[in-house]
Parts: sequence; C-alpha cells; structure tokens
Amino acid sequence: MNQPKNAVVLLSGGLDSATVLAIAQEQGYRCHTLGVAYGQRHSAELAAAERIAQKYHVSSHRVIHVDLGQIGGSALTDHSLAVPESLAAGIPITYVPARNTLFLSLALGLAEVLGAADIFIGVNAVDYSGYPDCRPEFVAAFERLAQLATRVGVEGGVMQIHTPLLTLSKAEIIGRGLQLGVDYAETVSCYQADVDGRACGRCDSCRLRQQGFENAGVIDPTRYIG
Amino acid sequence: MNQPKNAVVLLSGGLDSATVLAIAQEQGYRCHTLGVAYGQRHSAELAAAERIAQKYHVSSHRVIHVDLGQIGGSALTDHSLAVPESLAAGIPITYVPARNTLFLSLALGLAEVLGAADIFIGVNAVDYSGYPDCRPEFVAAFERLAQLATRVGVEGGVMQIHTPLLTLSKAEIIGRGLQLGVDYAETVSCYQADVDGRACGRCDSCRLRQQGFENAGVIDPTRYIG
Repeated sequence: MNQPKNAVVLLSGGLDSATVLAIAQEQGYRCHTLGVAYGQRHSAELAAAERIAQKYHVSSHRVIHVDLGQIGGSALTDHSLAVPESLAAGIPITYVPARNTLFLSLALGLAEVLGAADIFIGVNAVDYSGYPDCRPEFVAAFERLAQLATRVGVEGGVMQIHTPLLTLSKAEIIGRGLQLGVDYAETVSCYQADVDGRACGRCDSCRLRQQGFENAGVIDPTRYIG
Repeated sequence: MNQPKNAVVLLSGGLDSATVLAIAQEQGYRCHTLGVAYGQRHSAELAAAERIAQKYHVSSHRVIHVDLGQIGGSALTDHSLAVPESLAAGIPITYVPARNTLFLSLALGLAEVLGAADIFIGVNAVDYSGYPDCRPEFVAAFERLAQLATRVGVEGGVMQIHTPLLTLSKAEIIGRGLQLGVDYAETVSCYQADVDGRACGRCDSCRLRQQGFENAGVIDPTRYIG
C-alpha cells in the first residue's frame, strides 16, 4: 500500500480554503496547512484557520507573518483606506497586490522542505472579485515557475498546484463542502470581521458569501455584527 | 523630457545587489529598494543594505519581515544546521527554498503599488552556488507570471524583471561595479558575518567573493573575523 503523500494546503480560515482542505483530505493527502498573517484587517480569519486545522487533525499548521503594511496599496492592509460596501467595476481596492503569488511562494518553500509536490489553493475564477491572480492562466504560470524554482523540479519531479474550486460557483463550492461535512459556521469570510469572527454583511466578500448560500438553497450560518 | 521611471530594486546588502542598484540608477530609474528580513543568519547584510540605500539616495527603502524560520530547511534560516565551509556538489544546504520566488513576489506587490513596471534582482547564473532559482529559465517564468498576476499586466502593460548580472562572472560584476563607483567595503556577502559585518572567509559565499576579487585583479576590501 502506498504511503499517503504530503500536501501543503493554504488555509485562510475562509469558506473557500476550508472546503479545499476537506477536498485534499478526501483525496487522501496528509495535509500541512499554512496561514499567512499579512496585516489583514480580518485577523479573525486566522483564528478560524487555527480552529479548522485542529478540527481536521492536520499533520501540521503554521502561520507565517509577512508585513504587507510596508507595501500598502490595499484596503485590506492599509487601515487608512475604507473597505467598500458595494461591488464596483474593475479591480477593487481590496485587491492585495501580488497576494496569491506571495502565498504560493511561501507554500512552495514549505513544500520543498516537507518533500511535498502538491500544493492546494482555493482560488476561484467564477464568483470572485476581479483579482488578476485568481485566473486559470495565473495558476498555470505559477505551476510552470514552480518546476523551475525548486529542487523537486531540478530533480525531475513535478510540483503540482491544485485548484479544486477554480471553475465552481460559490453555491457549488458550498454544496461540495457540505457533502464533505465542512462546518461553515467555523469559517470567516468578511473583510472586516470583528475579533469574534462576526461579519459586517456589507463588504464584497460578505455579499458573495450570502449570494452563494442563497443560490445553494442552504441556510447561511454566518454570525453578523449587531 | 520624460519623467524618470520608478523601479523596485531588491537590495540584500551583498556585493551583487549593490552593483545592481548602481546599474539601475545609471540607467536613469528612480529606485525604490527592498530588503527582506527572512530570519537569515547574516542580518549584518540588512544593516549594509540600509547604509547603501542611504548612500545612493534612493527614493525609498523598505525592509519586509518574513519569518522563514517557520519553514526551515536551510542552514541560513535554521540555526540548528551548520553553514558548510567547503563547496559540495548539488544544491547546497544554504539554499533557502523558494527564496527568489518569495523576494520577487514581494517586489511585484511593491511595484504594483508604486506604479512601477520594472524590477531589478541580482541573480547570477555563472559564479553561483547551484540554486535552481538563479537560472535564466526561472527568471523568464517569473516574468511571464508577473504579467498575469498584476493590474499592470491586466491593463496591457509589461512588467519587466531586470537581471543585469545574469550572465556575468563574479569578476565581471566587480569590474562593472567599480566602474560605477560601488564601494564594496560597504557590502556584506558572508553567510555568517558577525554583527559588525565582518566575514568568516570560509563559507561558499565568502569563497565566491574572494575568487571574484582575485580574478578581477582587485584588492578585496572585505573585513574578516579574527
């Protein structure tokens, strides 16, 4: 019988990444979860990630701190910018420049150290907010880079970036997660959740989540502020 | 007359990146330097980066902290591993997994925020230590990724990764830097320099540097321990 393979799963504590973790486990991987504390407003997400990692008995859970406040330019890391409460055209101010490139870089480093050749990330190109680094062509380019950047690639192995949610709608993601027993009450999606993980109900991320539960015909367990 | 263009220059405080900064300035860019504190042993490098940035009157200098000690796997970030003092075949233990991918990701985020489409990095594929992420094909793959990952790319711009040292020998790098007035006494290359920036003279990086000065026929201004 084959040993289970190690995988690195990027786990933010949101709805999408919790579903990705459930999928990776169902596929038989030994999961090592990685959260990134990048100065985001919604640090309640990271507390959620920790709880989810424990619940899933992952092989390891890490949080890497990266101070993106030094770079700024996003309403999620620059607290002088307001989080918008209506969907606008174009790339929104909540876009964190190069965030998924950074997250995948850190996951790639960890994968190398663990001898893992599989990385899972919950990017989604359907019900998403218009971020350039959520598109399939971005993921394909990172996978190509990963071959060239790493020891695994040099030694002839294949480093694979798994994006099981890429072409699913938010409702489909929720449906898949519920099949796998994901407890969405544990997840935090809101860009400006309070310390207890209660959501504002008004930001892009809250709206996409609400719409997803509505379309899935499922009751949204999110706790709201006030 | 055109306004000078902004560029992000990765500046570690070593010989290579100091030379890259001099080259970027000579090419007329307004340089924004970026150092990464990744838990490296040789934090004297970062102090050197700060001095060099000041001396060159860069438009801005930032240091981003990323705790790669969480990931481990390298003698540069895991203090339980010894820095080797002889060159060995293969990828050495001083290799920091996915380091250049991470550095370029952070530079990419900063470039987006500054509205810069030019990133400079001192990777070198000649007198290097056998790291996979110093090869031209790695740089080309990152450049392709950068187009897809960013607002600049989405809006039809071109994000360029400049690697002016890529095909130079260490001796040629030193020769080029001296032409441009780089003061190599300010730079720190050693993997285990002391807090004053004095070098061990025995690690891979010290050996490559010594050999470079010898081949360039120039006196090495490095200060050594003991």
